[in-house]
Amino acid sequence: MTGRIDSDQLWGDLMALGTITEPDRPYTRRAFSPLFDEGRAWLTQRMRDTGLTTHVDAAGNLIGRLDGTHPSRPAIVVGSHSDSVPSGGRFDGMAGVGAGIAIARALGERGIELEHPLEVIDFLAEEPNEFGLSCIGSRGITGNLTAEHLSLENPRNETLAAAVARVGGDPATLPMAPRRDIGAAFELHIEQGPVLERESIDIGVVTAIVGITRLEIEFRGRAGHAGTTPMQGRRDPLIAAARVVSWVQETALELAQAGRGHFVATVGIIEALPGGSNVIPRSARIVIDARSEERRLMEEFREMLDAKSRSAAQAANVERAKLVCLSDNHPAACDAQLQTLLHESAKTLDLRAKFMASGAGHDMAFISQVAPAAMVFIPCKDGLSHTPEEWASASALAAGTEVLFQAILEVDRNYSKSLSR
Amino acid sequence: MTGRIDSDQLWGDLMALGTITEPDRPYTRRAFSPLFDEGRAWLTQRMRDTGLTTHVDAAGNLIGRLDGTHPSRPAIVVGSHSDSVPSGGRFDGMAGVGAGIAIARALGERGIELEHPLEVIDFLAEEPNEFGLSCIGSRGITGNLTAEHLSLENPRNETLAAAVARVGGDPATLPMAPRRDIGAAFELHIEQGPVLERESIDIGVVTAIVGITRLEIEFRGRAGHAGTTPMQGRRDPLIAAARVVSWVQETALELAQAGRGHFVATVGIIEALPGGSNVIPRSARIVIDARSEERRLMEEFREMLDAKSRSAAQAANVERAKLVCLSDNHPAACDAQLQTLLHESAKTLDLRAKFMASGAGHDMAFISQVAPAAMVFIPCKDGLSHTPEEWASASALAAGTEVLFQAILEVDRNYSKSLSR
Repeated sequence: MTGRIDSDQLWGDLMALGTITEPDRPYTRRAFSPLFDEGRAWLTQRMRDTGLTTHVDAAGNLIGRLDGTHPSRPAIVVGSHSDSVPSGGRFDGMAGVGAGIAIARALGERGIELEHPLEVIDFLAEEPNEFGLSCIGSRGITGNLTAEHLSLENPRNETLAAAVARVGGDPATLPMAPRRDIGAAFELHIEQGPVLERESIDIGVVTAIVGITRLEIEFRGRAGHAGTTPMQGRRDPLIAAARVVSWVQETALELAQAGRGHFVATVGIIEALPGGSNVIPRSARIVIDARSEERRLMEEFREMLDAKSRSAAQAANVERAKLVCLSDNHPAACDAQLQTLLHESAKTLDLRAKFMASGAGHDMAFISQVAPAAMVFIPCKDGLSHTPEEWASASALAAGTEVLFQAILEVDRNYSKSLSR
Repeated sequence: MTGRIDSDQLWGDLMALGTITEPDRPYTRRAFSPLFDEGRAWLTQRMRDTGLTTHVDAAGNLIGRLDGTHPSRPAIVVGSHSDSVPSGGRFDGMAGVGAGIAIARALGERGIELEHPLEVIDFLAEEPNEFGLSCIGSRGITGNLTAEHLSLENPRNETLAAAVARVGGDPATLPMAPRRDIGAAFELHIEQGPVLERESIDIGVVTAIVGITRLEIEFRGRAGHAGTTPMQGRRDPLIAAARVVSWVQETALELAQAGRGHFVATVGIIEALPGGSNVIPRSARIVIDARSEERRLMEEFREMLDAKSRSAAQAANVERAKLVCLSDNHPAACDAQLQTLLHESAKTLDLRAKFMASGAGHDMAFISQVAPAAMVFIPCKDGLSHTPEEWASASALAAGTEVLFQAILEVDRNYSKSLSR
């Protein structure tokens, strides 16, 4: 470790932003809320103190920029997001924004001028929010924010377009054409899983961000009196749902070990209606969240799930009334060259690194559509995230930021040609 | 069919009482509500019109009485209940009260005087109600209403004792000693199941009222991010819950076919928390409703469930945090002599009858603790109950009532000795 990153200041920034939270529900700073605005005002000031010029782009992203010696060259982006889930943590998102500011600070303190512009970006509304759409800012600058999205409404009937404008964006002029001026993009994030901590590894170099597919299945049977309806002849939809829950787990366990990259599938929502202890349910609903590094594997899983849910319905003599896809994102590969660079940077800094997929979605999944993008994971305590107990150590944060810093210097010096395209 | 029961008047009574309902939620006349009082005022008048003298006993039961020629002899009771579940039907409960009134009417019209007193009883609060206790009236006169029960409170902090007093009961003097002056008790009820209709049988002679045991199981595991937590090493409590749901159904199906009487088991409530599509649940809860005609079989089921839920927890690497018994009633056998009598009465009337267990609880389960008790089931449409679609035909109602009438005449004439004890 060469220690070019000021670990104390980076840590201080995260803790300071953490104090901007709903007081009785730490840590909550949801996108589009007054506290989010307050956090951004603080961040804007912090960016300016660090020598960055700031603006909010058409998609509502807060950008702090250093022009560098050749301002017309493609930009090197480093960022993440400052919004949180309700009762979330202080690291998911903010660690990556803080890392960007710390890198800008290190450049300033050492008088290093990059050849390329550096943009530290706080992407707008990465987390689920009142509009039911995540990654709004990164969608916006990659041509993934549609007119349909912009007309989504929150519970107070504000449209997403109006909300983006409220945080300083300009959705009317939001070009559907994606940004083409990004040369490379980096994001530091806590792993949000247990792997790095368990294996005592400092740096996860992300190979791909999994595709996430959410599926809802509803079985319908025949409600009945739990006492007077004989077992034989029942049409209990919860029996079919329970069998699919078991199958999803067994099958995902197999697919995860198939050597075809990261695969997980989870049933987090189950509901039996009417939900009385003495009533045979008339319907049962489950929501399946499946994630795969390989698109073909997801397609195979969906085909098997379709067949299994049909056969489970048949066995229970109920109807598989619904199998709908709630959302479906393709996996996004991280740039191979940048992956290698990050892995080498870690080695140079004497840090233990491993390649791994990201099981969570990130802004870089969208950015990778318009530019070479890569991510660094750092270990977090017990793999916890989206909870106030979320924790990463100051040294882990500094180490991850050093790796990014090293990689950005390398890209700036040696990849100019490939960045310019 | 000899036609001594006035089918039209019986039907008219049921339809008339059905109009006393929450207008926008037919058919709702919950115990202790103003509509319940209104229904009872109507019933009281109807009883008086039929020649019965009425009073409300200490437990809040409405009793219409004919003294008979020997008023000090044990009473012959015929009754059921006039309260309903929310959005219930017009037959569950009221059919049995209506049958009692119809029998009293038939006696009056034919100038028949019984030797024994006849009591037509509208038992208080048979259905689940705001106090979370059913069969309040029949518990009350059989020594099953404890001080603890009487101190239960509804959401408006009224005690059950106060509510019983409000409907005319006298809980302060409610003798813990059960009534000993009942010679025989009868109840007519819709089957609430599909068997009689399916088999084209007019009369079900109830052999026993099942014991009902409700069990709650909670599994606790470890919440986690659905994307970043590898399949291997997960501690997902819903996996254990799903396996137990499947097991309950498979096992109940086997036990139902074991030749040991009626057995059913149902999971009507399932809950996974926190219930987010992208979160591995931290806990999963199910409620099992199991019913058995044979107590020993229930005990065997509970032992197996205990073992199965432990092994399912172990297999999923979660904790079986809870297996609690929410309620546990023993089965109640109907009186063998009265069963035979009812079966013979049906035969005499040229009706098809079969012996069958009741899978639902009834006031007679409590009354059987203090007196010979028996029940007659009549077919209902599609086995439906506790729904506005609940339906029994006027002729089925009249047929069941004829059977009771016939049996009551027999008991009065020929069982005097055994009734007097």
